[in-house]
Amino acid sequence: MSLVCVLNGPNLNRLGQRQPEIYGTESLDQIITQLHARAEALGLALDARQSNHEGHLVDWLHEAGDRGALAVILNAGALAHSSIALRDAILSISTPVIEVHLSNPAAREGFRHQSHIAPVAWGVIQGFGGLSYMLALDAAASLRQGAAR
Amino acid sequence: MSLVCVLNGPNLNRLGQRQPEIYGTESLDQIITQLHARAEALGLALDARQSNHEGHLVDWLHEAGDRGALAVILNAGALAHSSIALRDAILSISTPVIEVHLSNPAAREGFRHQSHIAPVAWGVIQGFGGLSYMLALDAAASLRQGAAR
Amino acid sequence: MSLVCVLNGPNLNRLGQRQPEIYGTESLDQIITQLHARAEALGLALDARQSNHEGHLVDWLHEAGDRGALAVILNAGALAHSSIALRDAILSISTPVIEVHLSNPAAREGFRHQSHIAPVAWGVIQGFGGLSYMLALDAAASLRQGAAR
Amino acid sequence: MSLVCVLNGPNLNRLGQRQPEIYGTESLDQIITQLHARAEALGLALDARQSNHEGHLVDWLHEAGDRGALAVILNAGALAHSSIALRDAILSISTPVIEVHLSNPAAREGFRHQSHIAPVAWGVIQGFGGLSYMLALDAAASLRQGAAR
Amino acid sequence: MSLVCVLNGPNLNRLGQRQPEIYGTESLDQIITQLHARAEALGLALDARQSNHEGHLVDWLHEAGDRGALAVILNAGALAHSSIALRDAILSISTPVIEVHLSNPAAREGFRHQSHIAPVAWGVIQGFGGLSYMLALDAAASLRQGAAR
Amino acid sequence: MSLVCVLNGPNLNRLGQRQPEIYGTESLDQIITQLHARAEALGLALDARQSNHEGHLVDWLHEAGDRGALAVILNAGALAHSSIALRDAILSISTPVIEVHLSNPAAREGFRHQSHIAPVAWGVIQGFGGLSYMLALDAAASLRQGAAR
Amino acid sequence: MSLVCVLNGPNLNRLGQRQPEIYGTESLDQIITQLHARAEALGLALDARQSNHEGHLVDWLHEAGDRGALAVILNAGALAHSSIALRDAILSISTPVIEVHLSNPAAREGFRHQSHIAPVAWGVIQGFGGLSYMLALDAAASLRQGAAR
Amino acid sequence: MSLVCVLNGPNLNRLGQRQPEIYGTESLDQIITQLHARAEALGLALDARQSNHEGHLVDWLHEAGDRGALAVILNAGALAHSSIALRDAILSISTPVIEVHLSNPAAREGFRHQSHIAPVAWGVIQGFGGLSYMLALDAAASLRQGAAR
Amino acid sequence: MSLVCVLNGPNLNRLGQRQPEIYGTESLDQIITQLHARAEALGLALDARQSNHEGHLVDWLHEAGDRGALAVILNAGALAHSSIALRDAILSISTPVIEVHLSNPAAREGFRHQSHIAPVAWGVIQGFGGLSYMLALDAAASLRQGAAR
Amino acid sequence: MSLVCVLNGPNLNRLGQRQPEIYGTESLDQIITQLHARAEALGLALDARQSNHEGHLVDWLHEAGDRGALAVILNAGALAHSSIALRDAILSISTPVIEVHLSNPAAREGFRHQSHIAPVAWGVIQGFGGLSYMLALDAAASLRQGAAR
Amino acid sequence: MSLVCVLNGPNLNRLGQRQPEIYGTESLDQIITQLHARAEALGLALDARQSNHEGHLVDWLHEAGDRGALAVILNAGALAHSSIALRDAILSISTPVIEVHLSNPAAREGFRHQSHIAPVAWGVIQGFGGLSYMLALDAAASLRQGAAR
Amino acid sequence: MSLVCVLNGPNLNRLGQRQPEIYGTESLDQIITQLHARAEALGLALDARQSNHEGHLVDWLHEAGDRGALAVILNAGALAHSSIALRDAILSISTPVIEVHLSNPAAREGFRHQSHIAPVAWGVIQGFGGLSYMLALDAAASLRQGAAR
Repeated sequence: MSLVCVLNGPNLNRLGQRQPEIYGTESLDQIITQLHARAEALGLALDARQSNHEGHLVDWLHEAGDRGALAVILNAGALAHSSIALRDAILSISTPVIEVHLSNPAAREGFRHQSHIAPVAWGVIQGFGGLSYMLALDAAASLRQGAAR
Repeated sequence: MSLVCVLNGPNLNRLGQRQPEIYGTESLDQIITQLHARAEALGLALDARQSNHEGHLVDWLHEAGDRGALAVILNAGALAHSSIALRDAILSISTPVIEVHLSNPAAREGFRHQSHIAPVAWGVIQGFGGLSYMLALDAAASLRQGAAR
Repeated sequence: MSLVCVLNGPNLNRLGQRQPEIYGTESLDQIITQLHARAEALGLALDARQSNHEGHLVDWLHEAGDRGALAVILNAGALAHSSIALRDAILSISTPVIEVHLSNPAAREGFRHQSHIAPVAWGVIQGFGGLSYMLALDAAASLRQGAAR
Repeated sequence: MSLVCVLNGPNLNRLGQRQPEIYGTESLDQIITQLHARAEALGLALDARQSNHEGHLVDWLHEAGDRGALAVILNAGALAHSSIALRDAILSISTPVIEVHLSNPAAREGFRHQSHIAPVAWGVIQGFGGLSYMLALDAAASLRQGAAR
Repeated sequence: MSLVCVLNGPNLNRLGQRQPEIYGTESLDQIITQLHARAEALGLALDARQSNHEGHLVDWLHEAGDRGALAVILNAGALAHSSIALRDAILSISTPVIEVHLSNPAAREGFRHQSHIAPVAWGVIQGFGGLSYMLALDAAASLRQGAAR
Repeated sequence: MSLVCVLNGPNLNRLGQRQPEIYGTESLDQIITQLHARAEALGLALDARQSNHEGHLVDWLHEAGDRGALAVILNAGALAHSSIALRDAILSISTPVIEVHLSNPAAREGFRHQSHIAPVAWGVIQGFGGLSYMLALDAAASLRQGAAR
Repeated sequence: MSLVCVLNGPNLNRLGQRQPEIYGTESLDQIITQLHARAEALGLALDARQSNHEGHLVDWLHEAGDRGALAVILNAGALAHSSIALRDAILSISTPVIEVHLSNPAAREGFRHQSHIAPVAWGVIQGFGGLSYMLALDAAASLRQGAAR
Repeated sequence: MSLVCVLNGPNLNRLGQRQPEIYGTESLDQIITQLHARAEALGLALDARQSNHEGHLVDWLHEAGDRGALAVILNAGALAHSSIALRDAILSISTPVIEVHLSNPAAREGFRHQSHIAPVAWGVIQGFGGLSYMLALDAAASLRQGAAR
Repeated sequence: MSLVCVLNGPNLNRLGQRQPEIYGTESLDQIITQLHARAEALGLALDARQSNHEGHLVDWLHEAGDRGALAVILNAGALAHSSIALRDAILSISTPVIEVHLSNPAAREGFRHQSHIAPVAWGVIQGFGGLSYMLALDAAASLRQGAAR
Repeated sequence: MSLVCVLNGPNLNRLGQRQPEIYGTESLDQIITQLHARAEALGLALDARQSNHEGHLVDWLHEAGDRGALAVILNAGALAHSSIALRDAILSISTPVIEVHLSNPAAREGFRHQSHIAPVAWGVIQGFGGLSYMLALDAAASLRQGAAR
Repeated sequence: MSLVCVLNGPNLNRLGQRQPEIYGTESLDQIITQLHARAEALGLALDARQSNHEGHLVDWLHEAGDRGALAVILNAGALAHSSIALRDAILSISTPVIEVHLSNPAAREGFRHQSHIAPVAWGVIQGFGGLSYMLALDAAASLRQGAAR
Repeated sequence: MSLVCVLNGPNLNRLGQRQPEIYGTESLDQIITQLHARAEALGLALDARQSNHEGHLVDWLHEAGDRGALAVILNAGALAHSSIALRDAILSISTPVIEVHLSNPAAREGFRHQSHIAPVAWGVIQGFGGLSYMLALDAAASLRQGAAR
């Protein structure tokens, strides 16, 4: 069964509590639960993790590559805008990475307008709240079917 | 039946012929045909158009607002990076707009890294080829069901 | 009877509906009606138009020049901030142009702080809502009387 | 009788002598005289002052606020481009401020393209010579009549 | 007979009237007439057009590509400095494009120093007045003879 | 008895009236009264002044140096962001200067993010409202006791 | 008893050894010891930690929020200038955060002039050496008493 | 007898006390005394003043123009780098202005590298300490003799 | 017989060997030989030189001016992007200068996008390989016939 | 026996797999093995580590300082371009640090052109693949012999 | 007899012919002749040279240092704005260097506003035409008398 | 015997005299003598030169290419930061170039942080004084042995 890794960066463990006017009231656990249901329906294995440490995200990207994952869904949080190490980690594996954001960074502070991840990602989905993850999972599923990229 | 407008900007009529290493070999007609099939399955009406004139896109955004469309899927092409008029047109209607791109502008020239549309869009989907449109249509459909935004 | 042309750019046809907290609730038609009354009182002919196409505004500026208009009152909307073609059109005619804005662009997003039209306009009037047009018409009228510029 | 304060900044006492190709040959006294005539016709009291000291302009803005002036017409001269203190003084009173300039700063050196006053002013009128003040006075008068802003 | 398309952008219909100290006193018609004579001598078919609409220029570039033109001579006027859509239109056809300018933009305002067209053109000829077009036609003719590019 | 000078710049005389959502409802007099009470408790002499003139602040900094003050507590208001003359005045005396702000300039407009005073001050205290002054007075008092700097 | 958390970032464990001409000869342990004495006198509980890992600081900020701390005193060291994740962590809790620095970053290299923490902090205290922490503790204590912020 | 005005800006009254490693140990009075001796030898009248107020310097420049001075020697101190009002004051008189500095601003902080006065001055002399003034006086004297400029 | 000087800057002696994918395989000698043939046909004298020293190019521009050359065709190579001395040399003679490049600098690295020569040249021809020189020679020839510039 | 610490940052554990066209096919283990052989020949002890966590690198730099290492050879990977904490860690120890890179960052993306480590390193060696480490080890060895730095 | 070297850079051999509206009609020979007369009167030896080669100026600066010259008067022409090599040459000798310019670069194009020489020069004299050199010679003479610097 | 060329740019002939606190007290001759000894030991021929003329360095790079040198060790001095001609010269030969610096430019003025040579060099060695050359020679030697690059 194809594996999709869902990696979440700093402060995403605070979803639901953190600036709900921006991030909504859903917790990360609730989003992950929905993703598991959807993955099951699609016949995909899902491995979802969260860390506030850049180093763990780098480690996990390497691990996803080594496990031959179908795709990585990556919400790097604030690190998307500052971490070149994550960019390099993506370049060090052959697994396609989909960047997701709950909020729409383009509608926020200037320092959120640039992502070090986007230029090396397969694609980007942002602004749809928890739905961003669901759409990313559907995109990942399309890889299995040899869908057009 | 809820209406979704799909508006395409300059040079998208050249899809399939234009830089296929970036945009793929699918024509716009082929993408629209697939979107119609998917819309029918979802019970949505679809109105897809293309123009090389910024003015037409502004006109059509107004029209989508006046028709009470559920959502607009907008691929403004190069105008995404230069047209403030399109940004203002989006702000002049209450219909949510989803920005899509076939390619991943973040991986291309610097002048494609900024979008005047993204900050006023509901969300952005880019990099997935024709699949970008399909995911956007699914996102639009979620609006009908009172899905979390 | 001296002619004053009033040219309006993209999205100004949405006045009243568009972001009323910024642009007010008056429609463009209502503003034009008041301008006609004022023009009549001043003994001026008025020709007011609106288009979402940059090309039409360029055409109309040329036409105003060819008709020997006393002045052009130009609210280019978003094009004020991006269109060098409009700037060049103004330079290609000898008719003085007055730039007007309903809102005060200096109090809005950074990309509205620069106007390509202002440096080649006779003067600028911005921030007074519909009154901006009325003051511009009075300024135009002063030209007929050989008023100091 | 409603009061309108007309405050003039550095070097405006040199009008008529100073770069007449830019500022014209009219002296500040001549402009003020015309403003008094117009104010009388409009039933407005006028208090016009000039200083080369930023501090006096700050003091006078406070005073205008304390006197409940209908509006302030402010030509801050070069201070428009460098004085944050004037900006803050405007924010410290509730009286609307109209920024005026005789010349069109947008057509001059780059450092004159930005105004610290414009973003906190009601509106801006620039480029019409002495007529800029007259139009500003008319705008001020409209406030008394509950005119649309 | 090989076809060369000559496409002219905004305000070039004002040649002769527009800033003659920069653009000279020759009209566009006069230049086109000379080009036709030269094309005939060279055994080339010529199709010359002008529009103030970016959209028409995009359409015409597509058309030139579809007609298998030998080359396009493009004077985009002000759009050279702001239109990414024209750049993309050039990339969507295989016909070589020669950018021409009557004036020398490098000797004018800063915003004319950058061209979105130059990086995707075969070459650039600027500053020689109407002669710029003639030299471009000669360059185009060299393509027919398999001349070194 | 050691002397502490408290110097306040433009618009601080408007405290309580000026943007209370940013600066609070306390007047400068009320803050000074509290500072006097605290100074008395600490056995310090206090000399508090306010001016809207940069020149007076420069004069008073010189005077504080000449009087051998223990410290200057300086709230230069908007001049913190634009006045190099104040910076030089601080460098021309040997008295340590503590920069204070009621609001947190880092949370406001971009032009308030840089201070010409901070680089030559002993330290900076900002964001705590009237408490900023009290903390600065305590810091000043520590100088008398040979406290670690 | 109200809790105040004191969080220290990278390299602060080297205090006393590290560039003593900038940071002084006091060790972090010595500063913490003084803070404990002061906290006891003020009737406050104190929890002081240090880590060279951004992730730990993010974790600890979350923890401080969950424990309902009165305030966090945060010296993020070099991370103040580069970590958006810390900024977001502060926004994800309701506990007020006071940014402190031993040195005066405004007097050092350009890349230390900007702090990602300052815009979301209650206030900033910098430049006073170990005294910066003591003043911050006093500011924190004022919160307990419903002091003006 | 031809008049030369020597105008000194903020903090120059601190010469001798202020950063002697940069400005030397000579007081302004000592420099002026030497200038008077030299002026007498050259048969020139000298009027030397100092103020910490930008407004006074503007007033005095106007006065120098009205008195028909041969030249103004202006050391605006820190205002050279920030005051557009001084620049405009120089443009409002026909008297040539020589900018002098004791130190060499080009060898100091970046914000001292730009002068608003230099572009409108006859010439600039900087870096020679008190000798800068003496050389400027000689340059001024040359004007009387119809010396080449 | 009218003289045309062809001046070539650094590394152009490496043509044919140097990055042939950019500059082609033709040597400078081959290009010059073709230019001589064309010059002869046009009845023009040709003097072609190459140097890797900026100083020689400056000397030769002066010499061309002194010899009353009809025109200079200048390919300054890399110096086009960095040499203000060449710019000044062009301004010191009255001979018109045509800037040529074999490659199209606009399509290469950012530091090649600006030319110090272009703003003071009659015109620019770039991107056509050796043909750039031939077109420049034709442009030069037009000067002899009093052709429109 | 003198100790040399070799510290490797994020993604260097992927050497051999990661972008071999840039980093080569040698693994980090292979490079370390060669370094051990060379160190033995030079009579140096070697301690080589790798981590994807910035915090570990900071810890290890402190440790190297505490152990009195002769030198640190630091390949911080992507952190070289973003980590001020590493810079401060180097400043907090007295051990000389040599920055090495396998690739030549100057030949890659713009964000790799600046290193926060280089300005505080003894020296930099980059671009020579695994040889970069060998040369750095030789440089370190020279320290033992009192070699000129 | 003390030696003063006068070094002139590119295009100064064209003085009198080159842009006389900026540089005047005096030739360099005429200026040097006047300098010789003045040097003789002051009892100074003078060695004046000109070259269009940066390398010669570097050589001559070294030579001036080796000859123990009292001072160098350097008009580097355009190289002042681009040559770091000249800056380093000045730093490699102990002879004081006075930068002179005939014109006032601050009043000209932006790229002339920065000088690489000024920060390492003793002082700068610019804008006075040939008089700039004379004043510089007087400044140099003052060095012999142990005059205050 | 394989040849290594050592090319030195402006002011390196002043080594030992020039800013010894930065460049040390060793002369260039002393460094070259050591290099010759090392080259002999390695069985390499060495050709070392120095010039203050950019043109000579360009010529010598061409010559090194024509002679089939194994490598060039290039210390371009200040030209590293400004000369695009040197960059192009390197690109015009196939010999690998190693950029060396005695000092660490990253620790000096901002304009030394960028090198036009580094992006086209094989690698860079900087900061180790004369040892930089020795390490570069070892790197060059490795080329002969088919060492990994």
